[in-house]
Amino acid sequence: MTTALAAKIARDYGTPAAVIDMDRVERNIARIQAACDAAGVTNRPHIKTHKSPELAKLQIAAGARGITCQKLGEAEVMADAGIDNILISYNLLGDEKMARLGALRRRIDVTVAADNPVVVADLTKAATIAGRLLPVVVECDTGRKRAGVETSAEAVALARQIAASPGLTFAGFMMYPTESGWAEAQAFLDDAMAGIRTDGLEATIVSTGGTPNLKNLGQLRGATEHRPGTYIYNDRMQVAAGVATWDDCALQIYATVVSRAGPDRGILDAGSKTLTADTGGLDGYGLILEHPEAKIARFAEEHGFLDLSRSNTRPNIGDVVRIVPNHVCVVVNMLDEVVMVRGDEIVGVLPVAARGKLR
Amino acid sequence: MTTALAAKIARDYGTPAAVIDMDRVERNIARIQAACDAAGVTNRPHIKTHKSPELAKLQIAAGARGITCQKLGEAEVMADAGIDNILISYNLLGDEKMARLGALRRRIDVTVAADNPVVVADLTKAATIAGRLLPVVVECDTGRKRAGVETSAEAVALARQIAASPGLTFAGFMMYPTESGWAEAQAFLDDAMAGIRTDGLEATIVSTGGTPNLKNLGQLRGATEHRPGTYIYNDRMQVAAGVATWDDCALQIYATVVSRAGPDRGILDAGSKTLTADTGGLDGYGLILEHPEAKIARFAEEHGFLDLSRSNTRPNIGDVVRIVPNHVCVVVNMLDEVVMVRGDEIVGVLPVAARGKLR
Repeated sequence: MTTALAAKIARDYGTPAAVIDMDRVERNIARIQAACDAAGVTNRPHIKTHKSPELAKLQIAAGARGITCQKLGEAEVMADAGIDNILISYNLLGDEKMARLGALRRRIDVTVAADNPVVVADLTKAATIAGRLLPVVVECDTGRKRAGVETSAEAVALARQIAASPGLTFAGFMMYPTESGWAEAQAFLDDAMAGIRTDGLEATIVSTGGTPNLKNLGQLRGATEHRPGTYIYNDRMQVAAGVATWDDCALQIYATVVSRAGPDRGILDAGSKTLTADTGGLDGYGLILEHPEAKIARFAEEHGFLDLSRSNTRPNIGDVVRIVPNHVCVVVNMLDEVVMVRGDEIVGVLPVAARGKLR
Repeated sequence: MTTALAAKIARDYGTPAAVIDMDRVERNIARIQAACDAAGVTNRPHIKTHKSPELAKLQIAAGARGITCQKLGEAEVMADAGIDNILISYNLLGDEKMARLGALRRRIDVTVAADNPVVVADLTKAATIAGRLLPVVVECDTGRKRAGVETSAEAVALARQIAASPGLTFAGFMMYPTESGWAEAQAFLDDAMAGIRTDGLEATIVSTGGTPNLKNLGQLRGATEHRPGTYIYNDRMQVAAGVATWDDCALQIYATVVSRAGPDRGILDAGSKTLTADTGGLDGYGLILEHPEAKIARFAEEHGFLDLSRSNTRPNIGDVVRIVPNHVCVVVNMLDEVVMVRGDEIVGVLPVAARGKLR
């Protein structure tokens, strides 16, 4: 079965194609903005999901205060498009990056993260190049074991180093608690806040992250802002995490069934170079809306292997189906553009302007 | 530890960066061309790995006859660059693709694959648009359960349909045997060849695929050409498959250690948006040449999680390390460009011109 819209997409653009429903995008933006407002925290959306200045501006117009970027290159694209308040939630390091960060800081409000003294020492170079104070938040690890200092004592020591560094100002704390780790995060934050107070320092920003953590919004006493990313599109992981429904999934991959060599199997023209090998911890690589019991069981680079053995309805060769990806952020990361629709109407094409900005 | 070249790459381009050693690239091209020559099969390299017309031309200059593409969009980029003999090893389908295929066939020698009657019926439209005969090979499944007819009887029936279709010519058979499935492939091919002979048809092309299958080169009686892709760069999977050594791995990702929050762990500035979640069936997500016992244990989108618990040498924050990826094709698929080096000298930047050509 091919819907009328899917037939139009295939005719005008070919498959595989990434399609976003702007009604859903706008609804997602409004819903999470309202949740942040209700919880009394600033919304500082992470643009890693959409990598589009146009969508970032929709988020800001709806009430977000600034944006979050993971990569300096993403921030440069956003600044070029006129966005002037950016948190780069990442340890930046090295002369090449400090030159670019300094140039960026010269023209916009940019705050960066650090979790170690080597990074802090480098950041002073960027501040010198900028000729302006550079605010720095201390990244704290509250259980994810990614980046972030492991103890509140280290957080306080790093805050002191930042405050004592020429050109830098201590701006606060940044964390990305696990979904079940908010008590741990609270204890960490309370200790760190007590520690900096003895030095006369103040945390203007206490930033938390993650779309799955929307369900914990408002739980952390002292939090000032949240950095949700995936919520603008949502995906199979967010549905599994209980923070979105299928109707909230704004991005779908339209793909054609190109082979049905056996009765229980088929091939989609979308493989790991379109949907990625990222399972997000789920079984199968996406939900096919027309055949929810069909499983995208594995991938070659350009082949999606369908296991139809438990599916009552089976697609025909030539059918164009719609897939909700497991992890939408890594899918968008490979796309030059997404097709915008509203309901059954195609309304335009949106470039993924910060795609490929890996540094 | 940061090598002198790594320091130069980080200074001039920043990290993460993809770096190819052109001496190794040329050696890989020459070595596999010689192997094809010795086995008496034409080399028709698959450009899905490098997606670069410049590298495709090096392969052709070394003796390859034409190239293989998986996507029509890749073939268009290659044709625009002057490459005039392309096999598209994929079921193409739908009016949008037939219009483009017809236009492509009008200007170059292009052969396409088909594994079912629906695709064959569509291909006649492309031939009409081209105003030229379109050669079609029958894709045969010899154990991989991807695309391809499952039996030689189906292969013969499809060959007949192609030969009887206006505008199409039957060109032969295409397969991608599993590494252990060459006896199966031989039986399939022998039956199919006997079948078409009774119809007076001839298979000009009998095409096999896969870099891991280089060890089986020459084993299939009747094979006329091979389509290796990954061999130009190689990767951790090819080393594991026994068809390459670490010194044959021409592409490396240079990444910076940006965090060392615990003694047994660290963070690289290359995550799944650089190296992909594709494990290739291996443990860990790449080999770090400076720290071969360190494990890239998992990814966030822009974080590579290092498990250093079994590593005697441990990187410092700021070290730039070189990573051989597990599966190089999906890494290159995300890159706008690769930096070219020869030994310790940077010699230029090569655009990945067919990147993003997902359709």
